[in-house]
Amino acid sequence: MRIEKEFMQRIAAAAAAQTLPRFRMAGLKSDNKYATGFDPVTEADREAEQAIRALIREAFPGHGILGEEFGIENGDSRHVWVIDPVDGTRSFICGVPLWGTLVGLMEDGEAVAGMMSQPFTGELFFADGDGSWYEGRGGTRRLAVRPTRSLGEATLCTTTPAMFAGGGRAAYDRLEATVRLARYGTDCYAYAMLAAGNVDLVVEAGLQPYDIVALVPIIERAGGVITTWDGGAAEKAGNIVAAATPELHAAALELLND
Amino acid sequence: MRIEKEFMQRIAAAAAAQTLPRFRMAGLKSDNKYATGFDPVTEADREAEQAIRALIREAFPGHGILGEEFGIENGDSRHVWVIDPVDGTRSFICGVPLWGTLVGLMEDGEAVAGMMSQPFTGELFFADGDGSWYEGRGGTRRLAVRPTRSLGEATLCTTTPAMFAGGGRAAYDRLEATVRLARYGTDCYAYAMLAAGNVDLVVEAGLQPYDIVALVPIIERAGGVITTWDGGAAEKAGNIVAAATPELHAAALELLND
Repeated sequence: MRIEKEFMQRIAAAAAAQTLPRFRMAGLKSDNKYATGFDPVTEADREAEQAIRALIREAFPGHGILGEEFGIENGDSRHVWVIDPVDGTRSFICGVPLWGTLVGLMEDGEAVAGMMSQPFTGELFFADGDGSWYEGRGGTRRLAVRPTRSLGEATLCTTTPAMFAGGGRAAYDRLEATVRLARYGTDCYAYAMLAAGNVDLVVEAGLQPYDIVALVPIIERAGGVITTWDGGAAEKAGNIVAAATPELHAAALELLND
Repeated sequence: MRIEKEFMQRIAAAAAAQTLPRFRMAGLKSDNKYATGFDPVTEADREAEQAIRALIREAFPGHGILGEEFGIENGDSRHVWVIDPVDGTRSFICGVPLWGTLVGLMEDGEAVAGMMSQPFTGELFFADGDGSWYEGRGGTRRLAVRPTRSLGEATLCTTTPAMFAGGGRAAYDRLEATVRLARYGTDCYAYAMLAAGNVDLVVEAGLQPYDIVALVPIIERAGGVITTWDGGAAEKAGNIVAAATPELHAAALELLND
């Protein structure tokens, strides 16, 4: 099933109308959040998800929708939309524009289209049946990974090493020790940068489907490989490895499962 | 000595003309950097610093200039400009728009004016004798810290825990364990977010003067406190603590030096 770019743009705009006015209000208000009950991040999350659900219901009545804030509806449809209205809550809270609105489409259990929008920088990363695309500063261009094949040449991103529980931390540390450069604090933005050919590896743990489904087609249609740490479908979420090339992906999996 | 906003804007524009066209070329080219000798980050750094030096020489002949790339000139002047053309090299390499161009002015050893510009997001943070200011989306506004006084309410940023050598790592970990939220990967952007009231604490180690001098007036004129870990002048660089309030700064220093 093909999703038009115009629909992705409408979703991005509807979400931005709810998130952007609350971005950087978060910090200013957070120390009296408990007193006032006002929590801009939660409000942005809830209002953006409702706006996105309304657009999907109107355009695709009968499709399923799974969102972080409001659960599942029509879950037995062949088509299920998967929404994280604000991925990267800590970025949002800190005023850092690396959070994103994630919306993916599953068809028979497989992610077939997806988008990540960052409204402060004015960037939209999206994938449909034809390819993976960037729209922002300088217009629209096709996304493509770069041909990094060895860990020693690779740039690795993860949101925080603290996300790796138990043996996962040792596995991550082994991997980090072999790469050329590691960078933290990237949230969903790292997957977009992988698709755009700026980084080579993203390794994370404990993800929910709404954290990753939208990003799977963006990575795959840009030429990258994304799976769980045991090589399974990334749509299952949990522990995720995304890599620029099959060779790099295999090398990362081997080290993580050593 | 007072520096006009227009001069800061001219510096930001001249630097952006060198950095922005090379941003996100870095990743695409980096795997053949050693073969071709082409290194966009180093080029951005060198060309931006030359452009900034030319503007300063023209406007303030006889002033000293200290830059990351080309060392010191007129170092015995009462006024010394301190330049880091691209602070946050890893962000730049990864395509992440949290790097910045830093230019500060020292008068008799004290930082009296400064600017941080992020040209991809179109943001300029700067301080002069009158205050600390933001210019970007939505025009110009005054920057002010938020009134967070206790570690338990505080949001802490640092670029990476790996920057803390020896006993510094244990000290940092003690601090991180007491705060409400910690975020990594922020480079110079964290100091700007502290001045803007979005985060409360920035703790880093091993900094050079060009990493911090520009940021000192931006923090101080926004109402924050910035010193070395031993309470000395932040212009000396090294290990740095920036805090939203004197109370929070004192609590952080006590824990770091415990």
